Parts: sequence; structure tokens; C-alpha cells
Amino acid sequence: MARCDALGVAPYSDMEGGLYRGYLAPAYTAAQVVLAGWMEEAGMTVRRDAAANLIGRYDGSTVDAPALLIGSHLDSVRDGGRYDGPLGIMLGIEAVSALHAAGRRRPYAIEVIAFGDEEGSRFPAAMLTSRAVAGTLAPDALDMADGAGVALADAGVDVSDYLSAARAPDSTLAYLEAHIEQGPLLEAEGLAVGTVTGIAAQLRYQLRVDGTAGHAGTSSMTLRRDALTGAAEMMLAIERIARADASDLVATVGRIEALPGAPNVIPGAVTFSIDVRSGDEARRDRAAGDILEAVAAIAEERGLHLTVERIHDLPASPCDRALMDLMDAALVEAGQPVRRLVSGAGHDAMVMAALCPTAMLFIRCKGGVSHNPAEHVDPADADIALRVMLGFIDRFGKTA
Amino acid sequence: MARCDALGVAPYSDMEGGLYRGYLAPAYTAAQVVLAGWMEEAGMTVRRDAAANLIGRYDGSTVDAPALLIGSHLDSVRDGGRYDGPLGIMLGIEAVSALHAAGRRRPYAIEVIAFGDEEGSRFPAAMLTSRAVAGTLAPDALDMADGAGVALADAGVDVSDYLSAARAPDSTLAYLEAHIEQGPLLEAEGLAVGTVTGIAAQLRYQLRVDGTAGHAGTSSMTLRRDALTGAAEMMLAIERIARADASDLVATVGRIEALPGAPNVIPGAVTFSIDVRSGDEARRDRAAGDILEAVAAIAEERGLHLTVERIHDLPASPCDRALMDLMDAALVEAGQPVRRLVSGAGHDAMVMAALCPTAMLFIRCKGGVSHNPAEHVDPADADIALRVMLGFIDRFGKTA
Repeated sequence: MARCDALGVAPYSDMEGGLYRGYLAPAYTAAQVVLAGWMEEAGMTVRRDAAANLIGRYDGSTVDAPALLIGSHLDSVRDGGRYDGPLGIMLGIEAVSALHAAGRRRPYAIEVIAFGDEEGSRFPAAMLTSRAVAGTLAPDALDMADGAGVALADAGVDVSDYLSAARAPDSTLAYLEAHIEQGPLLEAEGLAVGTVTGIAAQLRYQLRVDGTAGHAGTSSMTLRRDALTGAAEMMLAIERIARADASDLVATVGRIEALPGAPNVIPGAVTFSIDVRSGDEARRDRAAGDILEAVAAIAEERGLHLTVERIHDLPASPCDRALMDLMDAALVEAGQPVRRLVSGAGHDAMVMAALCPTAMLFIRCKGGVSHNPAEHVDPADADIALRVMLGFIDRFGKTA
Repeated sequence: MARCDALGVAPYSDMEGGLYRGYLAPAYTAAQVVLAGWMEEAGMTVRRDAAANLIGRYDGSTVDAPALLIGSHLDSVRDGGRYDGPLGIMLGIEAVSALHAAGRRRPYAIEVIAFGDEEGSRFPAAMLTSRAVAGTLAPDALDMADGAGVALADAGVDVSDYLSAARAPDSTLAYLEAHIEQGPLLEAEGLAVGTVTGIAAQLRYQLRVDGTAGHAGTSSMTLRRDALTGAAEMMLAIERIARADASDLVATVGRIEALPGAPNVIPGAVTFSIDVRSGDEARRDRAAGDILEAVAAIAEERGLHLTVERIHDLPASPCDRALMDLMDAALVEAGQPVRRLVSGAGHDAMVMAALCPTAMLFIRCKGGVSHNPAEHVDPADADIALRVMLGFIDRFGKTA
């Protein structure tokens, strides 16, 4: 916790009065230097891979043993919290440090990996560096620039060598990530930690509602084709459908624009986003179908023209079942009730699943608040997470 | 109609492929030169006042007789229509031309005035030039610049002399404005023209709804305080309240912003505008009261924080009753059914009411469309409007 806090200010943040650590930016490089020192103190050999991820290796009982990867991301969103990402890295370092202090080695190596770009807060891409490690990155994905026009190729990495960050599958046993929940469920149930069952399947749509713009003062109510009141009715239908499904299903309208957008003009067009997620793809698809049917009916009834574009469709990324059982056992050993929950948010683990089995541990965060300076974790919960992680490492030795 | 069309293109428009004529911009000055020629052809003496309004005077039977002002505005919105404003000016010129051709003079003078800024499409003010004429302009209102940073003082007028455009009340008998309806009522009833009873009273609010921003994937539906779904429920309540009042009452949400505005973030705050209008101030106030009560109840029920700011409160500006009767008589003489209607939109007449009695004639426009290149008026309706205007001028002579 203290180390996360230490990285929350300059020179490890590029933002005055808050935390912003973009991939490859000065604060990122400065944080890597400190992090490398902590990894070395914990007994690890440190390297920076071709995608500028920082990796500390703690050898197993045999040289060149394949590794359990433990990681999370070092970058942050603008004005973000201190624990989203770094806490998972620090827990990996602490776990290795405990083994090292006890002079213990496992039959497998442990590599702690600090991913560089998960948030996508600097370049127009997200999970770029875990995709490089998992070997799922297309070369043309590297041809991009940040908001200031700095190309990735000029930002401190050799893009011609970038894809060599891909790990050989046979050197990688599994990927374990501890992360703050960024949601309110654990807190609501009085739990410190929980076993993640997977990353939710996600559907994203962009809708456009076309009506007729008109003068706010001269168009009588009965003759209007107001795109915004139509969109309002659609948003309530989306909320109603998602609420009616008392599972992990969530649906959100986060972005809306009404055109022309003047107080004295009836909106002629509205665009808005819909984000639908569930750990269960079929459930998600059913809800999305209900939503699209409902908004189409509302458009029809109001004489509005509706255009629906599917922006993306991310399948669910389940965690490994055997590793979930192992995590549950580690929870019980640490005196914690077993609670399994789906991750609504995306994480590097979602990408790493293409390379190896994955496991995730969620840690309670205050009020479910994240991507916000108010993000907070109880240090006692971080202690519990460390105990669970050590239990996982012990058991993983027996089953690997 | 042909003259309005002629002014719809370069050099009388400063916009490629559409009409934009901002106050004092090149297209405005070019249009004034042509307009002055048409006024002179119609027998008028032309001058430009201190606010850069163009005024053509047709003397009455006695020199220095007080004047009936006939006018509308020469400026346009960006990508606007050709008739919104200019048609009222051209009708004034045609009316004088008819008198001039017949060698007739009235006991009063007629001055046709082409106002410079009604729309407020260039400078951050509206009805600036009619306010100068009516004498209701505060000197500090002139200290402003357009979007490109050009100060009004550097745009082609002497701001130190600007307020001298104010007319002496005893030189001004009344103000008559013909204008396209910019609404669908006349068309819906198959009428070419109608007598305007006044400009609607208008209330404008800015609302802010505060909830809690959160991750769209990790916040379960039951634990959300979504500012946007709250705002959606409010918008539907506003629509319902306005629809329930089967009068001229209208209520519009034209502008909305959801923050932070990302597809994967539950909106933590939403701001939106409410515009409420009616020809009857008490009716408007009653509806606004119902609306504010309803939105407060929705905020309460959803645990959202609501902030309401009243942006402006414009009283109704009634047209002169005697002049409405006179207009009705002119309609009947022109073979038209009598129809009185309120103007939901603001017009220079609203400002001129501070100086003298006002009268307005509305002309049907296709589909009620205005502020749009598709704005259209049937030439036959313009003919009817001219006949009504001439009848008004004849009668006004008898009653003045």
C-alpha cells in the first residue's frame, strides 16, 4: 500500500495534484526504475521486455523452469487512483519477497510482470502490452500516435522489435492477477476478497435517433418528432430491461449527444452508446436483443428513424476452473468466506487467457470507486490478499 | 420572393453552398447596397442609422409626419433559409412601391427598416439593432466580439455613437412586421396568413443532475445512481406535462451533456436546458411549476442531487389590440379567414413594443421548417401577405 502511495505523486505522476501515468511517459519510466529496485530487493532478476513491460524473475528449484506469471498494470488513467493496477504488482513482489525471505523456491519460477498499457490512457489502444506478451498483437496496431502527435515508434520503444515480447507458451504455466474490484459487490457483502470467475462478455452499440429539428417556440407538442424525448424513453427502457434481470447483467448509456444542441431548438438527431455486459454470453445476448427490440418499438411509435451500429462484441473470458478451485481453497485457508464474482471490467488477464490459464483475485475497494483520486483500499484487505496469494502459490506448486 | 432568392447566394451570403449573412459581415454590407437600390426604386429616401440598420423613408402627405415602421431583419443564421427576415423587408418595400406607383401618400410616413442583428448569429447578442432603435440598449452591451475575436467596435460601426440609433417615440406611430411562421399551425389549417397576438412568454432553465459516476461493467444495476437515466425520466415528465396542456404551451429540452461522457462510464452528472413558452404567462408559469416539482420528485426518488438555475424569464410581448383588429379586417378584405396565433419565436417586434404599438402578420411556411436551407414559402402566400399589408396601411391611415 505504501509503495502504491509512493508512486502516486511526482515524479511518478505526470499530473499536478493527481495521478496520471501514461505508457512510456516520464512518470512511467521513473516508476519503472523504482519498481526494478523493489523487485531486486525481493530477490528477482529484472528485465524490460520489447514492449517496455518490466519483469522480475524469481527462479524455481530448477533453472529454466516454466513460470507462474503474476502481474497487473503500471499505467493509470488521467486523475486516477493509486491502486488500480499497481496493487496487483506490489502483491506479486511481496509474495516473492516472502518466499525469498524464507529461502524457499517453488518447482516453477515466478515472474512478476508490470504491464505498460492496460488503460489506453495515452495511445488509442488498450491492453497493448499484454497483447504483445500474449502474442495476439497485429503489427499494424503499432502505427499510432498519442494525443500530442508523438508516434509510438518515437516514444521509447523499438516498434520493429515490439512483437518479440511474445512469450513462448511452454515457458508460461499460468497468469495470476490481483486487482481492486472497481465495483461495490464485495463491500456490500462485507468481504475483503473474492475469486473472479472471468471477464464479462461485452456488447457495445452506437445508436442514432433521427427526428425533425424545429424551433422550440413554434412547434406545437403534438406535431413534434423530438429525437431527444425519444432517446429518453429508450434509455429508460434499457434501464428497465437490465434491472429486470436480477443477475450480473448491466446495461449503460454513458455517452449522449443531441443535435443541433441549442436550448431553443428541438433536437433533430441524438446519438448515444449502449454497453451491455454479463459473465454469461447468452444472458448478455438475450438482454441486448430485448433492448434492441424495445428501442425499435419506441422509434416506430414516435415516428423516429433509428440506426443501430454494433461497435464491438467481446466474448466472455472465463478464468481457469481448476485455478478458481485453488483460489477458493486459498481463501478458506486465509479464513475468508468463498465468494465468486464476475469482472465487469476488462483486465490484462482477459488478454493473457489466449496464452495460458488465468486466475484473478478481486480486492474490495471503498464505495466501488475507481478511476478517481478517491479510490481507496483498506490495508487490512491488502494483507488478506497477500495471504491468499501465498496460499495460491503453495497450492499451485502441488497441482502444476 | 425573387429578391429574397437573389440575396440567398454570394456575394450576399458568406457561406459556400448555403446562406449565412451575419451582422456587419461582407455579405451583410453587400446586401445592404442592393436593398438600398430597391428602396430607392420604390420611391424611398435611404439612410443607414448608427446601428447599421438600413432605413428607407416614404414621406407622408405632410413633411416630417410621424411614421409607420415596417420591418424585419436582414441577417440570417448559419445555413439558414432565405425568407426568415428578408421576406418582411421585401413586403414593406413592395407595399411602398405600390403606393408610389399609384402616386398615393398617406397622412403618415412609412419607413421600411431592415434590422441588422436579430438572430445573434455573429455576435453574442440578439436583437441588438432593434434594441438600439427602441432605445433599450445598455452601453456596456456593445463591448463584445464575434467568434473570430473581432470586436463590434472594429466591425464597421462607431460604438460611441451607436445608441443614437434610438428613435424619438413621437416620430413613430407603430411597428408592423410580416414574418414566416416558422411553425406548422397555418399549414396544418390550410391558411396562408394569420394575425399574431403577441410573442410568447419564455422561461429558460439550466438543470444539473448529480449522481455517482462508476464503471459501466462493475456497478450492479441496483446500486447505481445514474444521472443520465434520472435525466431521461425527467425529460419524459417534461414532455408529458407539456402535452397534457392542450394549448399553445410548449416545453423543450434542446441541450444535454452527460459527464464524463464515455461509453464505459455511468454518467455521474448531467446538465440540460428546459425552455417553456406560452402566449399566456400564467399558463407558462403553471407548467414550469409542475415541471420543477416533477423533476425534483424524480431526483428525490433516485437519490440524485438536483440544481436548478433560471437562465431567463421573458414576459409575453402582446401585439396592440386595436392593430390586431385592423389586421383581421385586412385579412377579411383579402378574402382570408381570420386566424389569430401566438408567436413562439422571438422577433424584433418584441423589442419594438417598448417604443410603440406593434402588429405582426405570420405567413405560412412549408412544414414549419425554418433556420434550414429547406425553408420555403409559397409565392401565392407572399402575394396574399402583400394584399393584407396594403389593407392594413389603408386602414391604419384612417385610425392613426
